[in-house]
Amino acid sequence: MHALTGHTRTLQIPSPYLLFLGDVELAGFAKTALGLRDWAPEKCLGELALPTARVTTGLAAMTPAEAAAKGAKSLVIGIASVGGAIKPEWMPSLIAALEAGLNLVNGMHTRLSDQPELVAAAERLGRRLIDVRVPPANIPIGTGIKRPGKRLLTVGTDCALGKKYTALALTRAFAERGLDADFRATGQTGIMIAGGGMPMDAVVADFESGAAEILSPPAAPDHWDVIEGQGSLFHPGYAAVSLGLLHGSQPDVIVICHEPGRDVVLGCDGFAIPSIEEAIALNLTLGRRTNPAIRCAGVSLNTSALSDVDALALCAAESKRLGLPVADPLRGGEAFAALVESCLA
Amino acid sequence: MHALTGHTRTLQIPSPYLLFLGDVELAGFAKTALGLRDWAPEKCLGELALPTARVTTGLAAMTPAEAAAKGAKSLVIGIASVGGAIKPEWMPSLIAALEAGLNLVNGMHTRLSDQPELVAAAERLGRRLIDVRVPPANIPIGTGIKRPGKRLLTVGTDCALGKKYTALALTRAFAERGLDADFRATGQTGIMIAGGGMPMDAVVADFESGAAEILSPPAAPDHWDVIEGQGSLFHPGYAAVSLGLLHGSQPDVIVICHEPGRDVVLGCDGFAIPSIEEAIALNLTLGRRTNPAIRCAGVSLNTSALSDVDALALCAAESKRLGLPVADPLRGGEAFAALVESCLA
Repeated sequence: MHALTGHTRTLQIPSPYLLFLGDVELAGFAKTALGLRDWAPEKCLGELALPTARVTTGLAAMTPAEAAAKGAKSLVIGIASVGGAIKPEWMPSLIAALEAGLNLVNGMHTRLSDQPELVAAAERLGRRLIDVRVPPANIPIGTGIKRPGKRLLTVGTDCALGKKYTALALTRAFAERGLDADFRATGQTGIMIAGGGMPMDAVVADFESGAAEILSPPAAPDHWDVIEGQGSLFHPGYAAVSLGLLHGSQPDVIVICHEPGRDVVLGCDGFAIPSIEEAIALNLTLGRRTNPAIRCAGVSLNTSALSDVDALALCAAESKRLGLPVADPLRGGEAFAALVESCLA
Repeated sequence: MHALTGHTRTLQIPSPYLLFLGDVELAGFAKTALGLRDWAPEKCLGELALPTARVTTGLAAMTPAEAAAKGAKSLVIGIASVGGAIKPEWMPSLIAALEAGLNLVNGMHTRLSDQPELVAAAERLGRRLIDVRVPPANIPIGTGIKRPGKRLLTVGTDCALGKKYTALALTRAFAERGLDADFRATGQTGIMIAGGGMPMDAVVADFESGAAEILSPPAAPDHWDVIEGQGSLFHPGYAAVSLGLLHGSQPDVIVICHEPGRDVVLGCDGFAIPSIEEAIALNLTLGRRTNPAIRCAGVSLNTSALSDVDALALCAAESKRLGLPVADPLRGGEAFAALVESCLA
């Protein structure tokens, strides 16, 4: 990691983590814990679950005191409740974590800092309550001034189709090739995986591109920031977030993320998903404003609904049609290697 | 004005106003008061100045008690201080206004609600402290769902070149033609002029287009909302605000605002101002996402630096070059009438 410049720092989360599973019964509500296990295993020491829990990460069970003895710095709430509340049943575990010397980390809408019992305990014990949806203070207005270092941004034809995992997979692939690369997180799960970042959707609009600028600060000329995209320029609710992130990131390279078979924007029935070609063209047109050298290295397809054979065939066909590398990063293989090479070309 | 729908209302300011000039010595620091006098004369009862003031609006001088007796509902801080602070010298006047029954209205960065003395007096007296830079709570995510009524948005090749005054002049011209038209304000001065609105640059990015949607709610089919633009799609700091406003406004008509002779983006030396044609094309491309029928009705030039003769000649030449009506709304005349007709065509 490179030192951040300027007066405002991005959010930073002390690690390693103890993952809190609470009383979770369905894996779908434990996405944060499972994502951390898969993408930040070096940060995850163990898990803490209530007796009623029906999901496990497979990591060692441990109490907050045991985790603290092994070096844990934070207990991460790795689950979501219906409605996003911090449930009363969780409180004894959260207090025990503070008492054991851990900070608390939360990515849900409800804030730890709005729970008087937790605030009192954290103050008494000198621990931090870290709500990762809360941006830092004093974010500057974006300047557009070009920063040294190389940057890649994952962008999408819609929300929630693989921009985070594509960025994580590319960061991992860059590191495996011996390159100096950082994953730059822009959403709550990504921020926990990275141990820091900027919750771009929670930043005041006037400071949106400025937030992206401090998220990926000036770096060595051969350093790569691989930046998690947010939303889509075509989304009637979230395009402002996407444009501020694109302008502030100044990407040299974009990778377009798309889910085959999704025809309509998530939650917006009247809005067709743009074609991959439209998404490439609009992102390049707008991205050129802060980086005239921006280029599209290829396409990441979320093929989780397809068989291996169908996924491979689709990537090959789309690659031929578009004249660009097309791969599902979570399937790896030669197609993904070609996408990685195209990013670095 | 049409009733706002949904649970969240935009900011509303009780009028008429008493304009507070404090100790202002230069007209440049009294822009808000002078703008209110020019564009909302029906809302302005009088002015209150300290003996050291060197600027006047020309309105009758009156004490808060005299203004309240004439029906005033709010004292508006019509000046800006260097650094945006609420100066100690102003405090006796502000307290006197609260005691006389007036609410306080402030558009500077410093908040009335952060001044303990004012908060205590307002609570004791049952008055409101209205910081117009603070957006309302519970703004929804934008849906993109098309709303009835006609909408015009002023957009620009840069910041601070006439988007507010163009929208005000068009609203006035529409009303003079007997049309039902509302000016919809998106910045602090505009909000005071309109008596309400949405401070778009202070809204959290995820809710930017949603804020624009509630700013111009569903209306009668022949009703016009004339919406004050913000920033520019080409500004490396503010484009997120501009895109959220464009998507949420769903304009049927845009008018491009431009200042001849300005070559570089305000405060961003490395960034050239786009051509008028580029600004038209990009606004239409992005605006089509939420209103496929969007069109550009013409161009508003800020010719304040030119002589009458030069301004007229430039508007005529640009109109011929672009094939669109081009006018300076503050100069009126046939060119402006043609621009108005084009908006309504």
